[in-house]
Amino acid sequence: MNLDKLREATRGQMPEKRWKHTLGVVDTAIQLAKRYDGDPEKAELAALLHDYSKAWAIGRMEAVIREQQLPAELLLHDKELWHAHVGAWAVQTEHGIDDEEVLDAIRYHTSGREGMTKLEKIVCLADYIEPGRDFPGVEQLRKRAKHSLEEALLEAFDSTIAVLIERRKRIFPLTVMARNDLIAQVNLMKDGG
Amino acid sequence: MNLDKLREATRGQMPEKRWKHTLGVVDTAIQLAKRYDGDPEKAELAALLHDYSKAWAIGRMEAVIREQQLPAELLLHDKELWHAHVGAWAVQTEHGIDDEEVLDAIRYHTSGREGMTKLEKIVCLADYIEPGRDFPGVEQLRKRAKHSLEEALLEAFDSTIAVLIERRKRIFPLTVMARNDLIAQVNLMKDGG
Repeated sequence: MNLDKLREATRGQMPEKRWKHTLGVVDTAIQLAKRYDGDPEKAELAALLHDYSKAWAIGRMEAVIREQQLPAELLLHDKELWHAHVGAWAVQTEHGIDDEEVLDAIRYHTSGREGMTKLEKIVCLADYIEPGRDFPGVEQLRKRAKHSLEEALLEAFDSTIAVLIERRKRIFPLTVMARNDLIAQVNLMKDGG
Repeated sequence: MNLDKLREATRGQMPEKRWKHTLGVVDTAIQLAKRYDGDPEKAELAALLHDYSKAWAIGRMEAVIREQQLPAELLLHDKELWHAHVGAWAVQTEHGIDDEEVLDAIRYHTSGREGMTKLEKIVCLADYIEPGRDFPGVEQLRKRAKHSLEEALLEAFDSTIAVLIERRKRIFPLTVMARNDLIAQVNLMKDGG
């Protein structure tokens, strides 16, 4: 696997703005991996590829879900979740990425899920706080991310859920399950000293 | 089925405060059923029985879930959800209540779920706004309940979710699915005029 070729291939899937965001997620994911004893190389790879299919047409994503071995229930879920699973399929098929940890970090970077791995947490949080992001509360999240991966991700999910309630938008049940699980993890860490 | 006997049996399952709450839910559910073209008799019955097992010991509820035909996955969910399913089992077994609509209204009165029936919505909302309830925003909910069953229930769920986020408590994924579904219903009603 040639990282330069992967970069070019990924850049070719998306408009310039999305590519700039991707580079921000890569930098932030590497930093987080170093800070939290993760694997910086896997973090770089998963971050680079996390939005591989984000700019694909809805119809193209739907075709992949239907024609390949992707879970059919995805079609019942929000379209915003499709690119994550389709992206994992695409980088596996087109570029031979076979590391399941990396593929899961791509698959669950938007929704999160119960039992997230460290790599999944890193990519998901990096996606929230990369330098190009600008939303109310992002500075606080960046500060929190310097002290606890789980606390920061929990706050990120909770702020998303709060905004979705305010705007009367759908909330992903997986995100709720992810934040419920993070509460348990954070409490366990506190109890453990 | 003798309603007076059912009342006595239900009263015998719970402390006085819970019984007073139950009577409030009964009154409110009947009013909502009349207002929204529901079935006041079913609303009365489901409301009367909704907290039948609420005061049961955790161990007793767990035994019912394990030894009877209740979904084993309940044990993985929050204990606060147990009394609703155990209560439906109890009133069916002990009092021969066989109306599935009534039993479902008991089963889902705490969490809600996707595709709630009118009766489920009525009992769930009545549980929020019965006269004995006193929490920030309850007056606004009572006003909303005069205009739209779905809007009022959506606001009730959203206020619960917001409080749970603030207090860093678990959120039931079923409640999130219920409110996502209610948003779609409310939007459809608006589009339909």
